[in-house]
Amino acid sequence: MHRGDTALSDRIDADRLWRRHLEFARFGALAGGGVDRQALSEAETEARATLVGWARAIGLEPFTDPAANLFLRLEGTDPTLPPVLVGSHIDSQPTGGWFDGVLGVLAGLEVAEAFRAAGVRPRRSIEVVAWMNEEGSRFAPGMMGSAAYTGARTLGAIRAITDSTGVTAGEGIDALLARDAGIAIRPLGRPAAAFVEAHIEQGPILELAGKPIGVVTGIQGKRTFRVTVAGEENHAGTAPRRVRRDALVSAVAIMTALQRETLDEADVTRFTIGRVEVLPNAPSVVPARVTFSVDLRHPDADELTRLGDLIAPTANAMRGPCEVEVRELLHDPPLAFPPEMQRLLSDAARHVGADWMSLPSGAGHDARYLHYFCPTGMIFIPCRNGVSHSKEEWADPSHVALAARVLVEAVTELSAG
Amino acid sequence: MHRGDTALSDRIDADRLWRRHLEFARFGALAGGGVDRQALSEAETEARATLVGWARAIGLEPFTDPAANLFLRLEGTDPTLPPVLVGSHIDSQPTGGWFDGVLGVLAGLEVAEAFRAAGVRPRRSIEVVAWMNEEGSRFAPGMMGSAAYTGARTLGAIRAITDSTGVTAGEGIDALLARDAGIAIRPLGRPAAAFVEAHIEQGPILELAGKPIGVVTGIQGKRTFRVTVAGEENHAGTAPRRVRRDALVSAVAIMTALQRETLDEADVTRFTIGRVEVLPNAPSVVPARVTFSVDLRHPDADELTRLGDLIAPTANAMRGPCEVEVRELLHDPPLAFPPEMQRLLSDAARHVGADWMSLPSGAGHDARYLHYFCPTGMIFIPCRNGVSHSKEEWADPSHVALAARVLVEAVTELSAG
Repeated sequence: MHRGDTALSDRIDADRLWRRHLEFARFGALAGGGVDRQALSEAETEARATLVGWARAIGLEPFTDPAANLFLRLEGTDPTLPPVLVGSHIDSQPTGGWFDGVLGVLAGLEVAEAFRAAGVRPRRSIEVVAWMNEEGSRFAPGMMGSAAYTGARTLGAIRAITDSTGVTAGEGIDALLARDAGIAIRPLGRPAAAFVEAHIEQGPILELAGKPIGVVTGIQGKRTFRVTVAGEENHAGTAPRRVRRDALVSAVAIMTALQRETLDEADVTRFTIGRVEVLPNAPSVVPARVTFSVDLRHPDADELTRLGDLIAPTANAMRGPCEVEVRELLHDPPLAFPPEMQRLLSDAARHVGADWMSLPSGAGHDARYLHYFCPTGMIFIPCRNGVSHSKEEWADPSHVALAARVLVEAVTELSAG
Repeated sequence: MHRGDTALSDRIDADRLWRRHLEFARFGALAGGGVDRQALSEAETEARATLVGWARAIGLEPFTDPAANLFLRLEGTDPTLPPVLVGSHIDSQPTGGWFDGVLGVLAGLEVAEAFRAAGVRPRRSIEVVAWMNEEGSRFAPGMMGSAAYTGARTLGAIRAITDSTGVTAGEGIDALLARDAGIAIRPLGRPAAAFVEAHIEQGPILELAGKPIGVVTGIQGKRTFRVTVAGEENHAGTAPRRVRRDALVSAVAIMTALQRETLDEADVTRFTIGRVEVLPNAPSVVPARVTFSVDLRHPDADELTRLGDLIAPTANAMRGPCEVEVRELLHDPPLAFPPEMQRLLSDAARHVGADWMSLPSGAGHDARYLHYFCPTGMIFIPCRNGVSHSKEEWADPSHVALAARVLVEAVTELSAG
């Protein structure tokens, strides 16, 4: 079967897909809007059961794995071939929105619905997937399920991670799997022919450009640092400026210099100081110690390296009478999705008449780990004002439907190969 | 009874007084030295109970007031006369030393011990006092108890102040008073004949001059502010710099400008940003809100006014795309203690053979508020390297004893009048 043989994208039911987003918003609903549906929570478990119900109603076979990833399988005509994976995640941030993650899973299910509605069986099986704990807010860091599946991290290391109450991810996984009785558990790392993920952009680019579909070129690189400035505690009323070793004065000078060093006219570099801790943090005490985070992202590997390598020398140059230590916590280089996957997705967009553009992803996604495992691609739709991780997160129903229409075209192609 | 009739200063027990400092260091003891004995904490409550025990052992009557100030009364021969108050505070900064505040209270208790040991009853009652929350680190601003007692601030306003966890000072006071069951609660603002306070200098002047006693001429002026910068939470990976309203970027620009505006070549101005709170304070989230403190001090009233009045316009000029609010919490003009109180204390120093000098106070003290309520004076002893609010804070045992000897001479004179 080849794209064009049947107009599968016409089988996408925009109303059903939108209604399912609204139904999903009930699981972990917050007063005032948005959801709190953190990984392995009661709310997420209920959402998962609903998803399984919808899948079973059209004859998809649900199964899971030791990382509690959920798969909904539409059996192909050659079940021995590695399947095409399509999906995202259904967990949210503590104050999350209705679309982040959910879009990719429900649109993936809608792809399967379209095949069913058309009475078409793909050659390869299609598996709609919901990866466990993408957000990483309860158990950090996130993308746990896709990391375990692809071997980027070991299941043992993931299971040992605790939430703020001391519960381990392993305990959470075991409790969830116990409730999934009757759902088969299959191994991690089963081969896949491809993975495609639809997601809201979580940025303003598509909205500003007036494009309903973005074909994602890759995920920008990320380096994170912890900068510690050590001075000397002193009395705010008595210590003359000249004898002070004020850690905040030095930290502010360092922050200012780092902002200047990383400022680019093109506004491609993402530089954020999100966390600051001051000790002893008392109004009348000269600060003895300031620790702050640096989150640096860039789509170009060399530029990411260059900018990140400026941080330590800049901090040292601006430290004044204080000591400074710069520790790098993470260096994830940028990745570019395979050109053939980008081409496949832009062809699919063109085929359904969607106006599209290429753009990089600023945020990380499960696709980051799948990229190193099988041919992987992503599409974005706009989200209002670029806002996500918020009750204000919003996507247009027509864009939601368009994402599913692009996906079904792409999956048709991939599952035929 | 007149000074010289009995050698009360010879009744000061230097060993007992020093030992009590060491015993007090147990309450809120920090690993590595120093104490965390913040106002209304468990550690302070335990220290208070110990103090009450020592006072009761020599027949002093403990009582408190609605601001949880603690009084230990040695009844005079004429109980109808306003008492002489002598004391300081027992709360500390989060990383405080062994002497700041404690010296004045324990030396005050030693004054009462000396009267008891000599079998002498003063004409006026003597009340050893520990004022509630001088430091103002948990509930800001400090000097709460003395402010409430003297009417400088209302109890209602003080009770409404919250700590960083949302607990109000009122709740803290009520909890402490509930544990003080059996201790009478007397009204705020009972008249006093005088107040004398002994304290470590918290600066280097006495040490540099080689003088064991300082007679304090006055306290420099102080203004404190809370600056709140409100921006918008955003995703560190996706939000372009141009659309961000990063509260930390604006706060850093404001802090830098304030440092520049208040910089004086003569190094007389004391400008400190000691406390910074960032929300949500997560490494990958653009800060939505930053709150920081400003502590500004100057011995000249006009210059203090001029500099403090620059803060709001400077913050507004540098706020960038964020909102900013500057709230003044305190404006205490500089003050000079009455010459007759300074003379009384220098006479007392001379009488016990202590080498003394006059000097101003850089730090604020409870004596600031008592000054406007009754004749008030202060003495300082040196602290090593001028350091306070630190585990390095240290005073010489001989200077500690000398402070009590000067105090008992002064209190003898004042309680006879």
